Amino acid sequence: MNYQDALIAAYNQVKDIDDKGKVASYIPELAKVDPNIFAVHLTQVNSENFGLGNYQEKFSIQSIAKVFSLCLAYKLLGEKIWNRLGVEPSGNGFNSLVQLETDNGIPRNPFINAGALVIMDILMSNLKNPKEDLLDFIRSLSKDSNINYSSAISKSEKTYGYRNIALCNFIKSFGNIENEPNDVLDFYFNLCSLEASCEDLSKLFLFLANNGKTQDGKEILNLSESKRMNALMQTCGFYDESGEFAFKVGLAGKSGVGGGTIAIHPNQYAIAVWSPPLNEKGNSYKGLRLLENFTTLSQRSIF
Amino acid sequence: MNYQDALIAAYNQVKDIDDKGKVASYIPELAKVDPNIFAVHLTQVNSENFGLGNYQEKFSIQSIAKVFSLCLAYKLLGEKIWNRLGVEPSGNGFNSLVQLETDNGIPRNPFINAGALVIMDILMSNLKNPKEDLLDFIRSLSKDSNINYSSAISKSEKTYGYRNIALCNFIKSFGNIENEPNDVLDFYFNLCSLEASCEDLSKLFLFLANNGKTQDGKEILNLSESKRMNALMQTCGFYDESGEFAFKVGLAGKSGVGGGTIAIHPNQYAIAVWSPPLNEKGNSYKGLRLLENFTTLSQRSIF
Amino acid sequence: MNYQDALIAAYNQVKDIDDKGKVASYIPELAKVDPNIFAVHLTQVNSENFGLGNYQEKFSIQSIAKVFSLCLAYKLLGEKIWNRLGVEPSGNGFNSLVQLETDNGIPRNPFINAGALVIMDILMSNLKNPKEDLLDFIRSLSKDSNINYSSAISKSEKTYGYRNIALCNFIKSFGNIENEPNDVLDFYFNLCSLEASCEDLSKLFLFLANNGKTQDGKEILNLSESKRMNALMQTCGFYDESGEFAFKVGLAGKSGVGGGTIAIHPNQYAIAVWSPPLNEKGNSYKGLRLLENFTTLSQRSIF
Amino acid sequence: MNYQDALIAAYNQVKDIDDKGKVASYIPELAKVDPNIFAVHLTQVNSENFGLGNYQEKFSIQSIAKVFSLCLAYKLLGEKIWNRLGVEPSGNGFNSLVQLETDNGIPRNPFINAGALVIMDILMSNLKNPKEDLLDFIRSLSKDSNINYSSAISKSEKTYGYRNIALCNFIKSFGNIENEPNDVLDFYFNLCSLEASCEDLSKLFLFLANNGKTQDGKEILNLSESKRMNALMQTCGFYDESGEFAFKVGLAGKSGVGGGTIAIHPNQYAIAVWSPPLNEKGNSYKGLRLLENFTTLSQRSIF
Repeated sequence: MNYQDALIAAYNQVKDIDDKGKVASYIPELAKVDPNIFAVHLTQVNSENFGLGNYQEKFSIQSIAKVFSLCLAYKLLGEKIWNRLGVEPSGNGFNSLVQLETDNGIPRNPFINAGALVIMDILMSNLKNPKEDLLDFIRSLSKDSNINYSSAISKSEKTYGYRNIALCNFIKSFGNIENEPNDVLDFYFNLCSLEASCEDLSKLFLFLANNGKTQDGKEILNLSESKRMNALMQTCGFYDESGEFAFKVGLAGKSGVGGGTIAIHPNQYAIAVWSPPLNEKGNSYKGLRLLENFTTLSQRSIF
Repeated sequence: MNYQDALIAAYNQVKDIDDKGKVASYIPELAKVDPNIFAVHLTQVNSENFGLGNYQEKFSIQSIAKVFSLCLAYKLLGEKIWNRLGVEPSGNGFNSLVQLETDNGIPRNPFINAGALVIMDILMSNLKNPKEDLLDFIRSLSKDSNINYSSAISKSEKTYGYRNIALCNFIKSFGNIENEPNDVLDFYFNLCSLEASCEDLSKLFLFLANNGKTQDGKEILNLSESKRMNALMQTCGFYDESGEFAFKVGLAGKSGVGGGTIAIHPNQYAIAVWSPPLNEKGNSYKGLRLLENFTTLSQRSIF
Repeated sequence: MNYQDALIAAYNQVKDIDDKGKVASYIPELAKVDPNIFAVHLTQVNSENFGLGNYQEKFSIQSIAKVFSLCLAYKLLGEKIWNRLGVEPSGNGFNSLVQLETDNGIPRNPFINAGALVIMDILMSNLKNPKEDLLDFIRSLSKDSNINYSSAISKSEKTYGYRNIALCNFIKSFGNIENEPNDVLDFYFNLCSLEASCEDLSKLFLFLANNGKTQDGKEILNLSESKRMNALMQTCGFYDESGEFAFKVGLAGKSGVGGGTIAIHPNQYAIAVWSPPLNEKGNSYKGLRLLENFTTLSQRSIF
Repeated sequence: MNYQDALIAAYNQVKDIDDKGKVASYIPELAKVDPNIFAVHLTQVNSENFGLGNYQEKFSIQSIAKVFSLCLAYKLLGEKIWNRLGVEPSGNGFNSLVQLETDNGIPRNPFINAGALVIMDILMSNLKNPKEDLLDFIRSLSKDSNINYSSAISKSEKTYGYRNIALCNFIKSFGNIENEPNDVLDFYFNLCSLEASCEDLSKLFLFLANNGKTQDGKEILNLSESKRMNALMQTCGFYDESGEFAFKVGLAGKSGVGGGTIAIHPNQYAIAVWSPPLNEKGNSYKGLRLLENFTTLSQRSIF
């Protein structure tokens, strides 16, 4: 089946299933989202693209944004960022502190909260205007992007972010945060507040399906770096459900607690799905089902 | 660079590097292997194949054999084997008991020792003559294979296998082993004693690069099962270095403490390397370097 | 209130309370005990003694016996036994393997199963006829004792003892067991099978209330060793309920899954209680309540 | 040997030993203390008292103060404080976050940092002027006490207290802190900054050796509460060296990273020692040795 047919079929298969997920409610701004929203957008390296549902509606992309901050840090500093954090699946939940204690403050990978905080710290030490510079970088990934921070979300995250405050100060106590924890957290909560639509996301992420180059041909990462970024998303992008995602979907990807999911098939496409209710691992219940059915129907995955 | 040129170049780059690994010595049979052996063999889906070094010399493939036992169990029982174990990277060493305690005896994945023991238990409950039937299955993967158990190795493993005895009895205490632990362990130690050459291995594993079919066209696993097997090797095949392997090499694969490594590029090839000295994570030091350089030079990985 | 009055009052207070405990059922021999049995016996250093309920009926003393094996090892080898295990509360359940992994096979204390196994190993390496010599030692603690092993119990423990087999082989894998695990386990299962009545126990343990000397004045341990043995029971005698026991009862003591509990008030008395149903920490529900009420009513504890 | 002779002898035995400890240096104020200071003061329930070395020099009592805050919370709210934290030894270091994650934010006991923070939170919710009221309470324990907070120390603790900030926010994330973490931490850092001399401490703590009553006969805690407080110090007062302390010293007690140690022999005395260098568990190297030798020479401990 071709991609468009496969996507329509998968969308319809999953659309009305009994959604066993629950919308994230740790901040009021996320809790009030309509749980029935179900949107998807596919952008191919050959520039064909296709969307279903509210694919132009912006939502809180949350941890999906961690891929952007990581890419910028990687682009700026190269392999030496790995002195500060690892590239291994953690085998634990996204906000666990346990491993940090045995690993002396070195996060297992950049996609668990601990690792994302270290990346923010690296960016702060290397950018003049961290918030603006990061936003400029993200916007440069796709020419028609108007992605932006949400001050309502970032404020709310800050108010209820005790676990992240704990994480950041814990890492600082091991010496693996250079800047003041409060400043790092402020930057981090801004990152998590970014809003984009499925269409935006699939376009912004296309460079990772395109060997590091945007649709305009601008090199964001080189071939090797681009492949490594996909490998990281593959092994660590879905917290302690990453193995399951690789097993059932077979793509590189990243999820966010806003219910968004991005997935990459190198040399083929980037696809973004949005369905707010989350399964117990914190990933979108219907989003993952859609991607599973889509790769099954299109009979193509990276394996 | 084409595969043959890339392989020759990578082999020569790595051949004489300072090997920081150490040969496994927990059993005398492994300790006496020549640490300087360095062999590799590539078999492509188009039937071209190519070897360097002692690629026809048999060695103890150890945990690489866990892919065979898993494939047979998966073929026999399908997805229901996942009621007994998971598909997630463990984030811990290959013989850790810690997670089993919190996970009530359900191993995280089939490639850590705990998971492999559960797979052996499944096979014992479903095969008439487990040892013979498993060997027959493996031999059927490649027409000219004369792979065999080594009684010297299996006996030695049994004598020094306290950690594995502990693991098996621990899982049994949670009710996730059906047969007598001693029998399961005996079968397991036999599995680990299998001997094959790099050439044998790259041919035996070709079906996983060939969408589940052997070179003769016999279907071992269906398309979806074959992809899932590769996904599992990708996320869990190198213990707590799986992320690193995905990041640097970008192939699905599996290592063994005998110093062997198998790697799969779906739709392209299976490659087997053998270099006995292991890094601190228990994977072949030079084997991994060779594969990293090979995929860099050939500019192709699954990402 | 004097001891006898306090004991009668406490016994009556607790006798008919709603017992929220459950009889241990991991081996059939323990499961078939009458849950309503409630016996207690007090022996004072001044030789007065007093019992209530079935205090002359023998029962499976289980882990209480670990104090005997430890005393003998301590008597034989002195402080050097602490090279093999610690004296710290574990903060975990009695049969946990987690800490052993981080502590490289050194058990936290002699009363968790791991530590008791190491003590058995020490005794095996230092006694000619371990089983007989240990029994002789125990019998020597009180002149009219006819304490004995139960072959039915030890056989049953062996049959269902997967967790202990796991523990022993795990410790062996770290090199902290000298003898063959199967032999150590056999000795251990015998230890756990010892049977005695409350009267027997309070007399056998009197030496620990009497600065190391039996009622006949024979020195089993010297003053310092005797105090240290009590300190150990105080901090580690009730698994992860040891703090609670010290907090509420304020005596040194040790429990067993057969529902028995021994407690020591140095310079005053040894008291043994038996009530089979266990609370969720594996200690006798009514036994602990009786001791709490008894020390409250007698207004005396070691604090 | 009587207490005075035993104390002189023990002091002289330990005075010039090779001190293997290291002065705490995580804040500059502690690092600049003279490592050779060695002071001790004993106050008996019969009012006799006796000191050696700089026993009237004030020092930073640090975690010893956690006994005061706990006593006040216990006095105010009674047993219901145990809904918020436990009474079990933790088996981990004093500032570990690991157990909190598995125990859902319920600290194991009031003497690890996590538990002390919860106690501060309880006090804040129940006192009008927390800092002043707590200081008044402490001063009321001994008539000639002029114990006080040190603003230099508390400020320094705040500046370097990332681990404690992490702990407090982590517990807050589980809902087991009612007040704002920053306020609780401010109160906590003040508590840790309290300064007193050995003489002050042995007098302030005498009520715990005197069944809850001060030397003037004022009841601070009732008999049962006083015994329970001692039990807690016994099982949890020295972090993961509590078992060792009970084993070798046999008293209830509490240590602080300033090098101070208080120990209680119920119905006999309170003793305070000060020697700044700490062993690897964070307890005073010479302080513990002095107490061990003292109880050995006086031939009296609670066991």
